[in-house]
Amino acid sequence: MSDLTIWTYDWVPPGPRGFVRDLRLRWACEEAGLAYAVGTVASDDRQAAHFERQPFGQVPFLDDGELKLFESGAALLHLARKSEVLLPADPAGEAETLQWTISALNSVEMVTVPWWFLNISGDPQNGLTGWLTSRLDHIEAVLSRREWLAAGRFTVADLLMADVLRIPQVRRFGERPATEAYVARLTARPAFQKARADQLAHFAAADAARA
Amino acid sequence: MSDLTIWTYDWVPPGPRGFVRDLRLRWACEEAGLAYAVGTVASDDRQAAHFERQPFGQVPFLDDGELKLFESGAALLHLARKSEVLLPADPAGEAETLQWTISALNSVEMVTVPWWFLNISGDPQNGLTGWLTSRLDHIEAVLSRREWLAAGRFTVADLLMADVLRIPQVRRFGERPATEAYVARLTARPAFQKARADQLAHFAAADAARA
Repeated sequence: MSDLTIWTYDWVPPGPRGFVRDLRLRWACEEAGLAYAVGTVASDDRQAAHFERQPFGQVPFLDDGELKLFESGAALLHLARKSEVLLPADPAGEAETLQWTISALNSVEMVTVPWWFLNISGDPQNGLTGWLTSRLDHIEAVLSRREWLAAGRFTVADLLMADVLRIPQVRRFGERPATEAYVARLTARPAFQKARADQLAHFAAADAARA
Repeated sequence: MSDLTIWTYDWVPPGPRGFVRDLRLRWACEEAGLAYAVGTVASDDRQAAHFERQPFGQVPFLDDGELKLFESGAALLHLARKSEVLLPADPAGEAETLQWTISALNSVEMVTVPWWFLNISGDPQNGLTGWLTSRLDHIEAVLSRREWLAAGRFTVADLLMADVLRIPQVRRFGERPATEAYVARLTARPAFQKARADQLAHFAAADAARA
């Protein structure tokens, strides 16, 4: 019996499939060998109980026995404490992993997601484009000098940064060979491939149930 | 002797004074009674050594003896582990504090800062305004039902969320009485007042040295 349950939507349209953020938590559990169940909330009609668990009406959120967390970044840091595969135990490796995990959330995704949002809203030459270029160029400079962000090996920081950088509009934005190689390398990992296939199968099963 | 050094710029123009993010770390140390030194890097001419410590050329970053971290959110979570004032020791309180700390960084600031950036770039009716409204309304709904975000008492999550929400353009954006009372209550704390006064004095001393 697993005590971990990853909560996601019951169904989403084809566009976001393979990118809904429960994938981050599935991927972390697959890397660490942690068993988990998947629970669902309605995406079409978000109920008060959903907002009680996730105040913005989003997914994912995580149950770990009695503990409950929302925010994919918080759930990742929580899961990471269960396995040295995700988070080194030595203080220097732990600090470096923490800083790059937060960097993915607050320095990179803070620009990529709003830029992407304006982009798909019909404003591809939006006012965040210069800032996006600068952030991605700095990341390219880092990744051109090393294979992993923290501790000289795969950590949860790479999992998250790769998930941030693999958004198609971001991945196609300019030529950054070290970043492209990094994203390709991370998303080739069997744990990512399984997490992605499982998410796609989850939503395909929902299609079948609706048909 | 303190082993903690908070790094910030040697000087900034008047506009950002009181808002440079070393304030978050000063505030956390003041709340927790942790002694710290303040180090400076040049803001006008950012050197390679600065980018080695902070890959985007920003501040703050933190030294804790041999450990070094960038990202204010990562440094806050690192400091929080030193004091139950900032982070409850029980697993439920810790998880709740972690989720709201990440929420401030990745659900609220991910919208407020890009919106603010477009706003001060001359586009106050920008394409992020609807998203900002939605996020702030959800936070208002949460804060109208409780005084603190996590564990029923002040934590590092409140410190960070209040620092995110006190940005003047965000604070003035619409009428949200519970959020306004929350920001007023948090920024009235002596630890915030001292951190802010110390940052203002730091930059005023730099003016005097340049005069």
